[in-house]
Order: sequence, then C-alpha cells, then structure tokens
Amino acid sequence: MQKTALITGSTSGIGLGIARCFAKAGYQIAFNGLEANGAEVAESVGKEFGVKTTFSAANLMNPEAIQTMVAEAEATFGRIDVLVNNAGVQFVSPVEDFPVAKWDLIIGVNMSAVFHTAKAVWKGMKARGFGRIINITSAHGLRASEFKSAYVTSKHGVTGLTKVLALEGAPFGITCNAICPGYVRTPLVEGQIKDQAKAHNMTEDEVIEKVMLKKQAIKDFVKIEALGELALLLASETSSELTGVSIPVDGGWTSQ
Amino acid sequence: MQKTALITGSTSGIGLGIARCFAKAGYQIAFNGLEANGAEVAESVGKEFGVKTTFSAANLMNPEAIQTMVAEAEATFGRIDVLVNNAGVQFVSPVEDFPVAKWDLIIGVNMSAVFHTAKAVWKGMKARGFGRIINITSAHGLRASEFKSAYVTSKHGVTGLTKVLALEGAPFGITCNAICPGYVRTPLVEGQIKDQAKAHNMTEDEVIEKVMLKKQAIKDFVKIEALGELALLLASETSSELTGVSIPVDGGWTSQ
Amino acid sequence: MQKTALITGSTSGIGLGIARCFAKAGYQIAFNGLEANGAEVAESVGKEFGVKTTFSAANLMNPEAIQTMVAEAEATFGRIDVLVNNAGVQFVSPVEDFPVAKWDLIIGVNMSAVFHTAKAVWKGMKARGFGRIINITSAHGLRASEFKSAYVTSKHGVTGLTKVLALEGAPFGITCNAICPGYVRTPLVEGQIKDQAKAHNMTEDEVIEKVMLKKQAIKDFVKIEALGELALLLASETSSELTGVSIPVDGGWTSQ
Amino acid sequence: MQKTALITGSTSGIGLGIARCFAKAGYQIAFNGLEANGAEVAESVGKEFGVKTTFSAANLMNPEAIQTMVAEAEATFGRIDVLVNNAGVQFVSPVEDFPVAKWDLIIGVNMSAVFHTAKAVWKGMKARGFGRIINITSAHGLRASEFKSAYVTSKHGVTGLTKVLALEGAPFGITCNAICPGYVRTPLVEGQIKDQAKAHNMTEDEVIEKVMLKKQAIKDFVKIEALGELALLLASETSSELTGVSIPVDGGWTSQ
Repeated sequence: MQKTALITGSTSGIGLGIARCFAKAGYQIAFNGLEANGAEVAESVGKEFGVKTTFSAANLMNPEAIQTMVAEAEATFGRIDVLVNNAGVQFVSPVEDFPVAKWDLIIGVNMSAVFHTAKAVWKGMKARGFGRIINITSAHGLRASEFKSAYVTSKHGVTGLTKVLALEGAPFGITCNAICPGYVRTPLVEGQIKDQAKAHNMTEDEVIEKVMLKKQAIKDFVKIEALGELALLLASETSSELTGVSIPVDGGWTSQ
Repeated sequence: MQKTALITGSTSGIGLGIARCFAKAGYQIAFNGLEANGAEVAESVGKEFGVKTTFSAANLMNPEAIQTMVAEAEATFGRIDVLVNNAGVQFVSPVEDFPVAKWDLIIGVNMSAVFHTAKAVWKGMKARGFGRIINITSAHGLRASEFKSAYVTSKHGVTGLTKVLALEGAPFGITCNAICPGYVRTPLVEGQIKDQAKAHNMTEDEVIEKVMLKKQAIKDFVKIEALGELALLLASETSSELTGVSIPVDGGWTSQ
Repeated sequence: MQKTALITGSTSGIGLGIARCFAKAGYQIAFNGLEANGAEVAESVGKEFGVKTTFSAANLMNPEAIQTMVAEAEATFGRIDVLVNNAGVQFVSPVEDFPVAKWDLIIGVNMSAVFHTAKAVWKGMKARGFGRIINITSAHGLRASEFKSAYVTSKHGVTGLTKVLALEGAPFGITCNAICPGYVRTPLVEGQIKDQAKAHNMTEDEVIEKVMLKKQAIKDFVKIEALGELALLLASETSSELTGVSIPVDGGWTSQ
Repeated sequence: MQKTALITGSTSGIGLGIARCFAKAGYQIAFNGLEANGAEVAESVGKEFGVKTTFSAANLMNPEAIQTMVAEAEATFGRIDVLVNNAGVQFVSPVEDFPVAKWDLIIGVNMSAVFHTAKAVWKGMKARGFGRIINITSAHGLRASEFKSAYVTSKHGVTGLTKVLALEGAPFGITCNAICPGYVRTPLVEGQIKDQAKAHNMTEDEVIEKVMLKKQAIKDFVKIEALGELALLLASETSSELTGVSIPVDGGWTSQ
C-alpha cells in the first residue's frame, strides 16, 4: 500500500528537497508552505514522480489551521504515515535587543507547531499502529551560537519533544526522531549570510568561510539529498526501534 | 559591596529554599511569586538573615510585568548581580489530549519568561561587567518522560537558551548556567505524585518508589540545600569561566 | 567499481548480520572473527550473494595481527572503503571485584582495537580520498549500567575516538560514525542474560523483561537488519557530511 | 572528624592547586606524583595549612603500585574519604602516525588508573557509607579535537566510568563526578602550546589565541581555584545526590 507523508514548509528549500526524495520513493505527499506558488509546486512534484499530492497553505502559528490541514490530508489520503516537521524561521540579534514578536514567531513556528502537528496526527497513527514523526531541527538543537537565542531555544525544545513523543509512541508503533543539519545552502541560509554579514561587519564570502562553515570540520554545505535519504531510513518499517534520537548531519560541528 | 539576587518563583518550594541560602550568604533578595503571602515571606526572610528584601507579584506570562519587576529591583537595590530563574509549572497528559492552554502556560512560564528576565537584566549586568544567570531547569532539561511534552520541551529549550546567554555574555563578565534537579519534595512534586497516581492507576506510595525515584539511582529526594549551595558557587566571582553548563543534581538519573 | 568492507567480529552475531547486509548490497567483505568456522562462514556468505570474501582470524588484542589483517585485505581487494569495528566482549561484575585481566581484555578489544584498525586503514583511505569508519558501540557508549565498568568505559572511549577520527578525516573524504544499539538478541546477549540472572538472582525471563528491556521504551529487541541498513547509509557516498555522530538504535533507552 | 583526600598527580599543576584548596579547607592530603621533589611538596603544603600529609611516588601505569598507595594512605589516615583522580598525560599526533606506546601510556594513566584507584578505595568507602570520587577529565571528555585520539578517547572513557561508579555507589553513600576543565595554564599546557605550534606551524602566541582559547567563548584560561572550589562542593556531605555528572568549566567551549 502506498504511504503518505505530510511535510511542513515543503514548498521550498530543505522541505521541498525532502518532499522530492519521498515522492521519488513512491510516497504520496501533503505539501504545506507559505510560498504563493505552493499549489503549483505540489502539482509539479506529483507529476514528475507520478504520485498524488495536495497542498495546504496553513499558517503554523495557528493551531486550528494545523488541525484543519491534518484533517484534510487524512480525508484525501486516508492516512498520514509520516509527518516531517520541517518549517522553520530565524532571526539574529543580541539578546538585549531581541524583539519579543520575533521570539514569539520563532518559538511558535519552529517549536510549538511541532506539538500541534504531532497532536493532530497522533490518533490516526495510534489507531493504525504505525507512525513516523521526523523533526528537522538543526545542529542548534544541540549547540548554541550567539545572537540566536530564539532559534537555539526552539530547536533545543524540539530535541526534548522528540524524546517525549518517542516514549509515548513506543507502545503504538510510532517513532519520533530529529535530523540536525549543519549549514545547507537554502533561501533561509542566504538570508542568514546577509544578516550575519551585517552583525559581524564582514563580506558575505567571509561569513560563509569564517562564520557559517567555521563550525563544521568539513568545509562543504550539507547536501539536501543526504537529509532526504536519512529521513527515508527513519520512515522505514525496519527502523522500528530507532526512536527518540537527534542525528546531526553537520560536517563534524557537534564533535568539536 | 553587598550583592543582589532576583529569584523568580521564590515564595515557596525550591525558589524559597534557594532564596534563604542566598540571604544567609549575605545577598539582598528580590522575591517574586504568586503566593498571596509573598510580601510576608520576603519580609520574614529579610528579618531572619538581616538583609534587605523586596517582593514582586509579577506574572511571568506577562513580559511587561517582568520588565517592571526588574526595573523596580534595579531602582531599589541599584543593581541585580544574580538572576535565578526558578519559577515553573507542570501538567501531565498524553500528547493526544494535551490542552493547548496548558502547553502555552508551561512554555510561557518555564521557558519564555527566562528570555524576558534575561533580556531585562542584560543591560545592567553588561554595564557593570558582572552578571550571573542561573536557570533552575530539571533532569527533564536533558531527558524525557512520557506524558510531559510541554514540560520537557520547555526545559530543553532553557538548556539551549542557557548556552546562548553564556556565549553572548562571555565578553561582558556575564555567565549563565542551569541546575537540573531530579525529584525534590516540593508542593509541585506533591501535585505530580497525585497526577501520576491517576495517570498510572497506582497509590501515591507506589508512585514515589516506582515512578518518581525509579529514575534516580539514589533513592532519596534531592535536598534543596544542595541546590542552594551549587547556585551560590555558580554565583561566585571565582566561577568566572564556568558557563553554559547544565548541571544535573538528580541521584544518577541522567547517568543511566 | 565494487567497494570493500572490512568488518571485525563478523563471523557471528551483529557483525555477521551487518556483513550479510553489505554483501547483499554488493560489497566485497573481509571477514574477521575468532569462531573456528570463520573461513566457512566467509565462503558461504560470498557464495550466497555472489561477492568475493576473505577471512582473517586476527586476534584484536594484537596490534601487529591487526596490521597484517588490514595489509592482507588491501592486497586482496586493492582497497578498504569501509571499516566496521564491531568486535566486542563483555564482563559483568561489581567494580570492587572486577578482575584486572577482564578490564584489560575489554578495553583492548572494544576500544584500543578501534584505534589500531583505524590507524591501519587510514593511509589507504586518505590516498584514495574516500573512507567510511563505522563503530558499533552501544547505548552504553552514552549511558551507564551498574556492574559494567569496563564495557561502559570502553564504549564511551570509542564515542570520543569516533569524533576525533571524524575531525581528522574531514579534509580527506573520510567519515567516522558510531551506531549504538540497545539490546539485540545475539550470543553475547544470551550470555549476558545468564550473567545478569546470577547477579540479580532472577530467572532469565525476568532478566529480559525487567533488566534488559527495562531501559528500552519499546519492548522488542533491536533488529540486526536495522543496524545493517543504517550502516549502509553511513557508508554511502551521499552521507559525506554525516560524521562524528553516535546514533542510538535503542528503543528509546537514551531518551529517558 | 578530619577528612582525608587522596589526589593523584598532585605534586604540580592542577592537582597541586586542588590539593592546596582541600588542605586549606582542613582535609588531610595523600599526595601522589612523579616529580622528584614530591615529598617536599607534600610536606610544605602540610606545614602551610597545618594538616597531615603523605606522599606516594606510585606509578599509575602499575596497578599493584596503586593498591599499595591506597593501602598505605588508609593505614596512615585510617580512611580515604575523597579520591581525586587528576593525573594525566597528553600526546599530539595525527592518527596515522600515533605511536602505539603513547596510546598505551595515555589510556593507562588517564583512564585505566581511574578504574584501579576507584577499585582500591571502594571497599573502605562502602564500609564507612561515605565516599566522594572526583575525576578531573577535560572538555575533551565531551568533545574532540584533531590529533588527540588517545587523550580524547581516554577522557571520554572516564566520562563513562564516572557514570558507572555513580550507579554502583548509589546504595553506599559513594558519589562519583567529573570536572571537565577547558584550558588551564599548567606545565602540561605549556607543553601543548609548544606541540601545537609545531603541528600547526604557528608562533606560540598564535596558538594560545587561535588554537587553544579559540574553542572557549571566554578568552581567559580557567582558574585552578575555580576547579578547587567545585571539587570541594562535590566532596561535601550536602552534595549527596549530585552524582554521575561531568561538569565543564571551560569558558563556554562545550556550549558551541
């Protein structure tokens, strides 16, 4: 039987890359994202890989919109087997000037939305005795950088939530894990390069070499395909005892 | 010169115990808490140890109330040298039934309030070139238990925030650390014993032995005095390079 | 071009299971182990999957035997692309009675042999600009249990060595990671069940439920196939930035 | 009653600093070290602080010498209340050239000696229902650096052993913890500065700024007095539930 994956923030960047990996592997995909052309992205990926896709523009700051998104996907596909919480936002500022609105946004989208989506898919996964929740966090789910108080807090929060969901899912065939990328060259990172250049008074090239990849021992951006393959492994039937884990894919960042 | 400590949630439980340790060591104390008799508690501790104390009933769900609390303490004492973020709330439920309002409360009080207090004290600490921020988290800042999705998430979040504040404070003589207690017999824990008894269908005695202290290798509740002495060490001038660390005091829980 | 994997302790248990996964995926296999029928095991796996195999009876307590084993495998296959350090021994005793000879054996086989094998394959991997070192450690590489001082020490040691090798391999296309299984039903575990039954004065069934899988939230032994698939992922070209990581596959053990 | 601390590697550097802190606090000290003037150092500290001291030149590569050292200290003082495993050696080299003899020395002194000393003091601590074992490891007990395969492995090993001893000691009033310093300016570090200067082709000043303290957010060496005060806290009666923990004092190194 064909499986279904709901992937948040999947109309661009890492989320889109992961969605393409799952579609290629035969999964039906429920897309979600704020890009204006989200519906077209979903349709295009569906055609390319010959799988059914849907699109929801649900704003992850809105718990009710999340519930509706999940209910619609379950209605369309009959089931959600895999939930990939990938949506994320970032803002960089010294703590003393960090805007409260930005704090609330980052905590809401990066962290609380993971609770809301997991809660929404839980009953169905439990009833079917199978579920895979995969949270795309960050090396910042395990380590900190200055000027990123909200982001690091939100990602560490998800590291903890991942463990709770693993424990609660254990009797029901539901696993929950996190993938913690280092730097992947996405639109989000393009923005960070600009922000950091301002914060550190450097050129963008200097930021890439000295700020971003400085923390990685391997001086290459992480490949989205590697994240997708790892997510597919976590989603497999075989990985039934692999749960509660946060797996860095970070070029050695967290080893140092 | 006499130092000042602002301690949230300090009118009962662990917070009060820590406040007493700091008062005994000569610190002036800015108390905070929701207990109706908070002002009396503050006054009584002040008399017992011969130190100046104040009391704020600021609700930590309210960022503006936090700003006011900090501003008043700085006005009264001229400085806040030590900030102890101790206030915490708990709620126990399977994730599928976890009330959104409880999630928001726990994330707000246990986690976001730490951001708001730290932000509020930062400018003063930075200007004086000295600051100590001590977050009372939990073994649940490092490990999970089922039915505690919000609590574990909030405490892991603070584990991350602790590291960010340590990095940002490094150039300014500000350190930030966390103490992660196991089970301490406080009013909060009394409530948990009751909740867990219901969740697990056990007597309260069974909960203590088989649920609570089951995770600790040492079958005794953690002593509040031990938390107070560790907090005093972290607050000292000597511990100037001890920063960014989450220190379990948990009877071996996190070793297993 | 066909790749080659050298797998220590591969003539039985987890090592044999991993070897079969790699053979099925088309790898040539250099077997190693102390089983009397090691050569037959190697030949039989080779025939089943149509890949070339060799066998070395090298004793991993002997650094020179390790060097010879690696040199022979490189001579036969022209290269070692993947090194899986899987061999392991265990002994259970309170620390005060722990025999020094057992300590030395466990540290030697489980830990120092990983250094010797890595050192031996390093020059070749570096020259070819590609290498994958995969250490099969244990949840005990991250957490402790009583009466296992040598085992836990050795496995934590390898957790550290894994990080060093990742950092040193970063410029040369060499990655190093560890897989940390919970309980897998192997001959080693059969022995532990017996040992623990004695140590705890329980029946073997009680040991399985209350001692071994007590620490796992998922009450099933870990499947060897899951370890094999994860090892294949780590060995892939795509996982080029996944390095220095210890990945538990432990039914939620380390989440708690 | 006066307590006794046995401190390995205490005739110079960090060990001597910790010994002085314990002597100042009224502990009797059993010194150990390889310095030729070890006996004089012990005598001089004893006079300065008015406490009884002894000296053993036991070589920590020799398990029998360790047993004798402990037996003599117990005979002289009647008891060992606190064991501080501080002795350590270092060697820096790429793994492919790392001398086997250096590996064996570092694993022996930094790691296996901790097992031998703990085993030797265990019966006495258990009989008296009180013991404190404090291992001075390193930030390298939690993180890696290139060219330090043996050191990082040995220190991670002790991180694990610390947890096992905590669990086994739990019923007997014995705690075991580790302190993980960043860079402290000791004779050992002076040597490392020279070695790293060679390895990285830099001046010694560049090594301090760019190599050593590069990993610390706080650009100061860690103060030995801070390590001593933390060790005294861990040794106290009050810290009876603080066990199994590795506490970095590293200027923010492990937060990043």
